[in-house]
Amino acid sequence: MKHYERDNIQRMTGYTWGEQPGRADVIKLNTNENPYPPSPAVADALAGIDTRLLRRYPPPLANDFRNQAASLHGVERDWLIATNGGDELLRLLVTTFMEPGTPLATTAPSYSLYPVLAAVQGCATVEVPLGPGFSLPEDLASRANAAGAGLTCVVNPHAPTGTLFPLAELERLAAALNGLLLIDEAYVDFVDPEGGHDAVSLVRRHPNVVLLRTLSKGYALAGLRFGYGIAQPHIIAPMLEKTRDSYNLDLIAQVLATAAISDQAWTRANAERVRSQRQRLREGLVALGFEVPPSQANFLFARVPADRDALKLKTSLQTSGILVRHFPTTGLDDRLRISIGSEEENRVLLLKLREWLE
Amino acid sequence: MKHYERDNIQRMTGYTWGEQPGRADVIKLNTNENPYPPSPAVADALAGIDTRLLRRYPPPLANDFRNQAASLHGVERDWLIATNGGDELLRLLVTTFMEPGTPLATTAPSYSLYPVLAAVQGCATVEVPLGPGFSLPEDLASRANAAGAGLTCVVNPHAPTGTLFPLAELERLAAALNGLLLIDEAYVDFVDPEGGHDAVSLVRRHPNVVLLRTLSKGYALAGLRFGYGIAQPHIIAPMLEKTRDSYNLDLIAQVLATAAISDQAWTRANAERVRSQRQRLREGLVALGFEVPPSQANFLFARVPADRDALKLKTSLQTSGILVRHFPTTGLDDRLRISIGSEEENRVLLLKLREWLE
Repeated sequence: MKHYERDNIQRMTGYTWGEQPGRADVIKLNTNENPYPPSPAVADALAGIDTRLLRRYPPPLANDFRNQAASLHGVERDWLIATNGGDELLRLLVTTFMEPGTPLATTAPSYSLYPVLAAVQGCATVEVPLGPGFSLPEDLASRANAAGAGLTCVVNPHAPTGTLFPLAELERLAAALNGLLLIDEAYVDFVDPEGGHDAVSLVRRHPNVVLLRTLSKGYALAGLRFGYGIAQPHIIAPMLEKTRDSYNLDLIAQVLATAAISDQAWTRANAERVRSQRQRLREGLVALGFEVPPSQANFLFARVPADRDALKLKTSLQTSGILVRHFPTTGLDDRLRISIGSEEENRVLLLKLREWLE
Repeated sequence: MKHYERDNIQRMTGYTWGEQPGRADVIKLNTNENPYPPSPAVADALAGIDTRLLRRYPPPLANDFRNQAASLHGVERDWLIATNGGDELLRLLVTTFMEPGTPLATTAPSYSLYPVLAAVQGCATVEVPLGPGFSLPEDLASRANAAGAGLTCVVNPHAPTGTLFPLAELERLAAALNGLLLIDEAYVDFVDPEGGHDAVSLVRRHPNVVLLRTLSKGYALAGLRFGYGIAQPHIIAPMLEKTRDSYNLDLIAQVLATAAISDQAWTRANAERVRSQRQRLREGLVALGFEVPPSQANFLFARVPADRDALKLKTSLQTSGILVRHFPTTGLDDRLRISIGSEEENRVLLLKLREWLE
């Protein structure tokens, strides 16, 4: 039968998302959702919505949100674009800055959406393996440049490993790259605050650096689809004015996201709880014989004890109503990516793991 | 200064949207918004939202909405894709089905977003002038095919003229085109029901027809950003599974849109009120010397009386707090596109026009 879609679309495979069960009684540690609820300011904002206002188009540029976020990061509003989840920012970067036929560069492993977005644009993906101890690969810039990559994507803290790459290394990478560097900070709200990690300084110094932020993780709003990008105006403007859908964010999402980002105290307290649970869960897993690298995100990337099978463990946990993520990739298939749950969820998880190991 | 965006992005101009004033006291007849509020079922659905659920990802395929819409149109769910406004469907059609370098075909005039989306994809636009009396151009298929157009877009009822093209003409067009035919039914809810206009039959008979529907106009939900496409599954699947952002619709929008589309009685009554006002406004304009073709949409495309200047009239109305749309296009610049307002809004408009003409 005749197919109408472009050849590269027919050839490619779509994104595989983590399982979203309909049941509410599942312990869901497979998609890095926040175990705690969003700020009460979000519920207050929702209660204040008059649905009669919905007959009008929403503010096209989400300026209330952009003003608030710009103030938070100490940049001007034109350094910021609000997007329908971080995923929309990724798509806009590919659409706007990647010529079909030129590759996207990233690490291996990395966020599995990057190659999908590149394939939609008719672009290949150059995957450079992480260095020892899940470190940033030293040859990432040279290989990206050699391949002519218009965009290099690095998740930091890294997923699925949880490693935080130092800013100095990212700065060297930004300076060495010919194309854009996207630092995907989806999990940055969970970084230990003591280190003072703040990549906005890189954006100020480098015309090719874009930061991705999302309200999905740290703000517990994955269901709201709201993210934003920070970069110098010459990078923001073409996405804001040309390639973005003209009304990409609905009115309710704009109002709720603005309320959420205005309540930094809640977000900080939420992240502190997650970090505390992260430490306890890690200790519990290590005590059971798992090898667990330190994580600065809201998940752990745990190697199952020797002579145990990670996929079987994942399946066994699923039978008990606990979802975790397994990646069937050589070299990583002896691990599980486990999102940090609530204290009770983590307790039940450790209990089930102990039973399984006995 | 070095630019990072693709050359075609740098060269192109973005979409110009209708003015969205911050003031609430404006009579806003410039962007075809519905003058009446959305169904009370939308407010009820909003009141039932528990923001704690937002910490989880939303249903990725919006299946509750798709089930409801599929039932409304008498098709299977896999004939339907839900999108972030109708604009997202348009973008997905371009991304999925248009090879860079091949043109998009449409009528002149038409929805000004089509050429923008084509330009983002590196595609030109072939614009075929409407026939006499704003009719569907007879040479649209031959010119689209000759240019190798992968996608032909027809707004029906047409914007900005308000003409309803007969299904038989669209069916001939669909059969003659080598590529896809998008029938943009953004305004179809305002068509007189007596004619029994229903283009879903075309989708059943033609593997290359896509219908666009939106909740922005007939459902009075422009602020919610919700639309959908109807086509055979071989057209829907690549957009649903490959080119769409994996979580394109937030949870709240899904719940509210499902509530809205479930209340057909409200939508029908709303459209009946708009049609009634359309007739009265048209009669009022004609009495003032405007030439106003019959409209099946929620706007009129009125030619100002001879020796009067449409742009000056638009500016004068703006001074009085009334917004209407003027297109500075040769052959159309003697007209105003006026959205149907509420009874009171239309009364004030006619009053101001009478003053201006005296």
